[in-house]
Amino acid sequence: MKNILLKLSYDGSRYHGWQIQKNANSVCAEVTKAIRALTKEKEVTVIGASRTDAGVHAVEYVCNFRTASTIPPQRFKYALNTQLPYDIVCHDSYEVEEAFHSINDTLKKTYRYVISNGEFAIPFERNYAWHYAHKLDETKMQRAAAYFVGTHDFAAFCSSDTTTLTTVRTITELKVERKGNHIMIDVTGNGFLYNMVRIITGTLVEVGLGKRIPEEMKTLIEERDRTKAGMTAPPYGLYLVKVYVKGSE
Amino acid sequence: MKNILLKLSYDGSRYHGWQIQKNANSVCAEVTKAIRALTKEKEVTVIGASRTDAGVHAVEYVCNFRTASTIPPQRFKYALNTQLPYDIVCHDSYEVEEAFHSINDTLKKTYRYVISNGEFAIPFERNYAWHYAHKLDETKMQRAAAYFVGTHDFAAFCSSDTTTLTTVRTITELKVERKGNHIMIDVTGNGFLYNMVRIITGTLVEVGLGKRIPEEMKTLIEERDRTKAGMTAPPYGLYLVKVYVKGSE
Repeated sequence: MKNILLKLSYDGSRYHGWQIQKNANSVCAEVTKAIRALTKEKEVTVIGASRTDAGVHAVEYVCNFRTASTIPPQRFKYALNTQLPYDIVCHDSYEVEEAFHSINDTLKKTYRYVISNGEFAIPFERNYAWHYAHKLDETKMQRAAAYFVGTHDFAAFCSSDTTTLTTVRTITELKVERKGNHIMIDVTGNGFLYNMVRIITGTLVEVGLGKRIPEEMKTLIEERDRTKAGMTAPPYGLYLVKVYVKGSE
Repeated sequence: MKNILLKLSYDGSRYHGWQIQKNANSVCAEVTKAIRALTKEKEVTVIGASRTDAGVHAVEYVCNFRTASTIPPQRFKYALNTQLPYDIVCHDSYEVEEAFHSINDTLKKTYRYVISNGEFAIPFERNYAWHYAHKLDETKMQRAAAYFVGTHDFAAFCSSDTTTLTTVRTITELKVERKGNHIMIDVTGNGFLYNMVRIITGTLVEVGLGKRIPEEMKTLIEERDRTKAGMTAPPYGLYLVKVYVKGSE
């Protein structure tokens, strides 16, 4: 058996996230189906590095699966695209060591949230950015962002229906950058709670609007109260940009 | 009666072009419906600066209509967006002189064609760029582009089912630019034949592939034979970027 790593890009618009669910379209189900069609193996288990929510996109998602197929590992990236739907693209594939596991061996992940901050929405971006017409002050958002960096209990920035053991996570970088009418929020960390990036984004937007001051972030984190943090930004502005796994650059 | 000019952006994916057609979704029909809903006027005629094909997008489309409504002309840009579908956005509106006519008073138009030229398709761009995996040589395409600039009979670059009186048009600028894995073709001219930009693009792609030499463009134009020119590039990579009308900057 070979253990094969895949890198995928996908448009999350049509999917109920990565994770296989009953009666709902998922990216993992499509990838599994495509691998089955190629390898003719019935039992295929695809391990994904991260759950992504419905509507959330991925620029470089990492997953792995085991196969006895004689298809050379490097060929999967071409062969899979003949089987995958138009909104999922495999752009890399290679063999990894037998023990590699996409969840356990993920060291950190980078997410990007894109806000379209012009007066009018851009129709081409309606599934790919959050249009917020009111001008946001990105320098205030940058000052607020600094409070999130480090190891904190992010209970205030986590949807209440989470089942995680601990709400402590480490954010190693949180950048807010404006390019014309777009604001990009790039977050890197060792792990993320349910809706964490979207709630941080919603809170930073409220700072950008002047509804909250940057210094308030410190108290918000300390109080661990979800009801005091900001709104949850919509899923379609969010991208899983990069998954850093053990053994990769 | 006031004569009001609108500037629109739209995602052409769901539409059979600008022009109203029986039994088919069109951008003009949606805009007309939205104006009717706002003004409560039954007889609304919207004059668009250009037909666009099914699937073709617009960044700044110009159209005009006459109304006795008391809605201030500048307000239409906000009011219309409450009525328009999510993939059509009005971003400017103002009163123009009584005689203004979007077709007759259009001086020139700029189209952009976007080619995604990386090895793998980008799922977010599937409706917004033509993915061409084989590496294109943009310097050859640039040399070929120069032959199109000027006043020529573009009969070879026009779909056969055209009904135009003359196939002579003037291209004032034709730029080919690569930015990373994207190639942008920007064409400005006083008027365009049916499928003209898409056929020029298809022909330039064949030059970029090395299937044709740039110098061949001269003969192609002179021979006026559609069957000798290149393929018609797909509609979803094409954008009407700007309409220059009399009296505007």
